[in-house]
Amino acid sequence: MDDRTRERLARLALAQSRDVGDLWLAQAVAEVGAVELHDHLRSGRRHSGTAAKAAARLAAVDPARDLERGERVGLRWVVPGDDEWPSQLADLVHAEDPNGTGGPPLGLWARGPLRLDALARSVAIVGSRSATTYGCDVAAQVAAECAAEGWTVVSGGAWGIDVAAHRGALAGGGVTVAVLACGADRAYPVVHERIIDRIAEDGLVVSETKPGGAPHKGRFLTRNRLIAGLTRGTVVVEAAIRSGALNSATWTTRLSRPLMGVPGPVTSATSEGVHELVRTGQATLVTSGQDVLEIVGDVGEHTVVPRRAPERPHDRLTATQRRVLEAVPVRSPAVAGSIAQVAGLGLDGTLAALHELRAGGLVATAGHGWLLARQPGEEGAHA
Amino acid sequence: MDDRTRERLARLALAQSRDVGDLWLAQAVAEVGAVELHDHLRSGRRHSGTAAKAAARLAAVDPARDLERGERVGLRWVVPGDDEWPSQLADLVHAEDPNGTGGPPLGLWARGPLRLDALARSVAIVGSRSATTYGCDVAAQVAAECAAEGWTVVSGGAWGIDVAAHRGALAGGGVTVAVLACGADRAYPVVHERIIDRIAEDGLVVSETKPGGAPHKGRFLTRNRLIAGLTRGTVVVEAAIRSGALNSATWTTRLSRPLMGVPGPVTSATSEGVHELVRTGQATLVTSGQDVLEIVGDVGEHTVVPRRAPERPHDRLTATQRRVLEAVPVRSPAVAGSIAQVAGLGLDGTLAALHELRAGGLVATAGHGWLLARQPGEEGAHA
Repeated sequence: MDDRTRERLARLALAQSRDVGDLWLAQAVAEVGAVELHDHLRSGRRHSGTAAKAAARLAAVDPARDLERGERVGLRWVVPGDDEWPSQLADLVHAEDPNGTGGPPLGLWARGPLRLDALARSVAIVGSRSATTYGCDVAAQVAAECAAEGWTVVSGGAWGIDVAAHRGALAGGGVTVAVLACGADRAYPVVHERIIDRIAEDGLVVSETKPGGAPHKGRFLTRNRLIAGLTRGTVVVEAAIRSGALNSATWTTRLSRPLMGVPGPVTSATSEGVHELVRTGQATLVTSGQDVLEIVGDVGEHTVVPRRAPERPHDRLTATQRRVLEAVPVRSPAVAGSIAQVAGLGLDGTLAALHELRAGGLVATAGHGWLLARQPGEEGAHA
Repeated sequence: MDDRTRERLARLALAQSRDVGDLWLAQAVAEVGAVELHDHLRSGRRHSGTAAKAAARLAAVDPARDLERGERVGLRWVVPGDDEWPSQLADLVHAEDPNGTGGPPLGLWARGPLRLDALARSVAIVGSRSATTYGCDVAAQVAAECAAEGWTVVSGGAWGIDVAAHRGALAGGGVTVAVLACGADRAYPVVHERIIDRIAEDGLVVSETKPGGAPHKGRFLTRNRLIAGLTRGTVVVEAAIRSGALNSATWTTRLSRPLMGVPGPVTSATSEGVHELVRTGQATLVTSGQDVLEIVGDVGEHTVVPRRAPERPHDRLTATQRRVLEAVPVRSPAVAGSIAQVAGLGLDGTLAALHELRAGGLVATAGHGWLLARQPGEEGAHA
């Protein structure tokens, strides 16, 4: 058996010796190496504490059979050292949550033609399961815009914002990646089986849970760390104050990666969590895929052009015209002499400017006087 | 004539020698004093340039008559040195816009029982004239919350957000101040005559334009500097990319006072300007009066209690219960032995915890197995 195979099998066995996201295991592997740790735990020596529990579970696993079973259902087991291993997961080494889970995964099960290292240019879009139509529409739009620029959209395949983001990325002609809490050969929720299969056609379905593995609560939390760890940044579209989506947000912040939030009506409970992230400075407000890519892209790669309204006739006025315009009343017409006085200009210059402004549609005559013309779509005299 | 009267009359005369917000005048008064400048311009000496223009206009004004006329329509002329003069306007000394207007006003016309120095605890709420129902509702709500805490709400009396803020403050049992571009004895827009009279009953209607003065374009821009200059901070509720409300925002930033923005749907053009202010870090996101007061209030005066969802049964679990709960499958029931294995706990402890969790409504039995109970209103397994 060659070294790569030994490494892959050792990691696959060890991954089942503890729950996914187990920090003890991640640290032990980082310190002594997967093959060494595996052989040590299988050496027949007496172990105590966590090592004893891991050794007991390890005795019952058959990684070669798991590998063969996974391959039979179209999955591959990817580990550090493989060409396609996403190196950005290394940042998880120093990330842990208060439950004591964290660390990089020992390996990832993947289904689909996309290489995992393509996630070097990816962004996570996550949010509430009980999302509003508004939230789903915006998630799909942002995902489509990111996908159209060649970025991979990563989410969790769940109801609401997650699936809207996946669908939006596909609609934008891009690829998308679903990171699941259950085995990568399964679908959760079951009603998403078709969209998850569709994702695997061009993109990837990824999990650190072994094929056939069921979703349970702990696995969702550790899955969220993978979504944060695989991507350049995380966009939260809708999240109530206590939404699970905020758990992905926290992982993103732990990794010092950019966290972004799409605002919504302040009257919507599903936007409250996002507003709180922005208000307290944890997340940057974004309103579009362009805003997102400006933040996660390389410097100068996706710079947002400052928003401008269409040019208006005002924009090309001379200083005199502008000064006369500012002296023209909004409501009750004034005669040219009075406008000249307010403008602090001579009568001739004022009259000339008034006629030029009338030609440009900015002022109008009324009786012997002048007043501002109302501009189509203009906000009025505030401006 | 006593010194105070001479000062008041000199300022009233000078205020009419140039347009409101004239920076040349503000600087000349700051340098030599109002009475001295007035007497200098009226001395009969030959002047040139701006001074000559000011002197020419000055010859035509009759401040004593203006004062008497203003008082007849219920206005008072308030100048620096008066007890109620709002000292925060002094910050305008160094503020000017690219049109060359700025500086503190020479005095203010006021109508209503509120003292101008009450504006030391005030906040501006401004926004689009072409506001949405959402924007008007939120403006009114934020205004009511600020007013209920004893803060004065300042706005411009305009259509849309402005009048919604005034109405909200009154509904919140507070006082509100309208700063107008026309004379403080008038109403603009005319349809707001009743609400503006209502504002003057308990609060104030304020203007630097003399009684009877018409609103014209330049006066709206200089009026916006007063709204920013009188208040501790400015909240923009809705503003399109090129809304006049952004002019008030710019004045606030020039004064280094806090600028705040209420978000809305990213699909709404009237929220685009606000989102841009927040996205680029010019404004802080706020969603309520409490958020606003935390920013403009004194340290510790209005601290926002971190938003929390109501406590859930999860919050009081023991470490063992939590660990067992995390091992319970979401969908397909698992037997206790399998759950014990996933949890890494013994069967007895797992069974005890499962029964406790069932009593708490967190897990349910199904056949011989166990699975998570769905929580009412919970976001599901993401959390």
